[in-house]
Amino acid sequence: MRGARNMEDYGLFLALLGSALLVGFVSVVFSLVWVFSYREGLGWDGGFAEFNWHPVLIVTGFVFIQGIAIIVYRLPWTWKCSKLLMKFIHAGLNTIAMILAIVSMVAVFDYHNARSIPNMYSLHSWIGLTAVIFYSVQLFLGFAIFLLPFAPVPLRAALMPIHVYSGLLIFVTVIAAALMGITEKLLFALNSTVYSTSPPEAIFVNCLGLLIVIFGALILWMASRPHWKRPPEENAKVQQPNGGAPEGMEAESTMTDCSNADKSDVGFNSEAARKRNFKLDEAGQRSTM
Amino acid sequence: MRGARNMEDYGLFLALLGSALLVGFVSVVFSLVWVFSYREGLGWDGGFAEFNWHPVLIVTGFVFIQGIAIIVYRLPWTWKCSKLLMKFIHAGLNTIAMILAIVSMVAVFDYHNARSIPNMYSLHSWIGLTAVIFYSVQLFLGFAIFLLPFAPVPLRAALMPIHVYSGLLIFVTVIAAALMGITEKLLFALNSTVYSTSPPEAIFVNCLGLLIVIFGALILWMASRPHWKRPPEENAKVQQPNGGAPEGMEAESTMTDCSNADKSDVGFNSEAARKRNFKLDEAGQRSTM
Repeated sequence: MRGARNMEDYGLFLALLGSALLVGFVSVVFSLVWVFSYREGLGWDGGFAEFNWHPVLIVTGFVFIQGIAIIVYRLPWTWKCSKLLMKFIHAGLNTIAMILAIVSMVAVFDYHNARSIPNMYSLHSWIGLTAVIFYSVQLFLGFAIFLLPFAPVPLRAALMPIHVYSGLLIFVTVIAAALMGITEKLLFALNSTVYSTSPPEAIFVNCLGLLIVIFGALILWMASRPHWKRPPEENAKVQQPNGGAPEGMEAESTMTDCSNADKSDVGFNSEAARKRNFKLDEAGQRSTM
Repeated sequence: MRGARNMEDYGLFLALLGSALLVGFVSVVFSLVWVFSYREGLGWDGGFAEFNWHPVLIVTGFVFIQGIAIIVYRLPWTWKCSKLLMKFIHAGLNTIAMILAIVSMVAVFDYHNARSIPNMYSLHSWIGLTAVIFYSVQLFLGFAIFLLPFAPVPLRAALMPIHVYSGLLIFVTVIAAALMGITEKLLFALNSTVYSTSPPEAIFVNCLGLLIVIFGALILWMASRPHWKRPPEENAKVQQPNGGAPEGMEAESTMTDCSNADKSDVGFNSEAARKRNFKLDEAGQRSTM
């Protein structure tokens, strides 16, 4: 089924995926330990416990789930599932991430308003809100153009590289905003004098920041390897003049359920899949990020 | 010389390059206005004026110059220059950026030590120092493997995608660290109560943060378009079995001076260049970021 080289690649992919899942999961655990062991826990009372939903939901939704949504097309065992099903999973995960991000923002605004603290004054809030707005636009345009069947094929082809680029850009911007948020919260909660003595909470939350950076680095590596791309649909009806069908342009497969698919010929990184991908690269219309 | 499509692409590239240069330059000006109009200016006295070198040199060197170094291979009017010359320019700009980053760190350590403030306690310092260390390793390995003529061709080919990925990852990490540094400095200098009233300095420096994000976004877009890659050397001596010579594998051109090169056939994004690039994409050995 697979040659030695493919197995090696497959093993590397699995190792990176496992690492990303582990680091992402540990980040979520760290955010929970932070608010429960060092802070006031979780609640919805206009106080610190309500604010604490903000880091927990951002790390869970806007970092971890968004990261998984980015690489969901790259999981080789999903390549036999229909593209449409994978689009629903991609859009669904991103929708969950957006809902969690919005709830996490409501928690902060509610906390600020209850304590008469001004909103939207810090660079963290400017960049964080910008990321949420762009993320909403990205989700809406992605739904309208790539999920609904109305957008013309050339429009999909033209916008796919922008969709991929802006998705990754939003992801790294969210991580940067999260790191700024950690910096702010530690300075507010500990004040700079205590923070500078490196108490256990400071060390622990700095480590959370590092975990988020490592998670982002793993996702970006997996998302940017051209030979780990999902191959286009076999039964693509819309063909380019040169024989390739750029991503976002394939006619949908009739399959909607992975379990019905014959997996016996799913060769990870198979030569056939590679050749199909290279044809698309030749067309120069698939994004390479 | 160029078809309509190529001219359109060329115009877009120039517009993005001009925007990046403008935004990067304005960011440097903003950092200077910040320290001279709102803070204590520049000096080397163990006080705030010495600390102020830190944001100025980071924005100038580690953000602006590093960003230009990343896209220097993509300037179409340099494609007639030898690859070796461009490597020297790429390495030279990165060396300048690293020297400025190191001086900027010395300024902070000196300031901290003069005032008995602990070093390396904040997440900003952890991530910033990590970025400087990785940047030094990147520069050393880039010099040893891609500039010096000793590394075997397969090693260059295998490491080039990692070099490109880690270069871009360090760049976005530096930007994230800069945004955290702005957050820290505003909270130290204004304290959170004054910062939350959005005084002119806070608005101004938040805008500096946004400019840095926009600069980063422009550089990442230009660096990740496959059709804006520098075409490989015409006289590549080392050929792959499929006829392509991955980046980092070309034999060096004997040209070392752009002025001697015949520029008459430099077609930006020319079909010939595109085809050469696509062959490399087929080999799957050039990074696509």
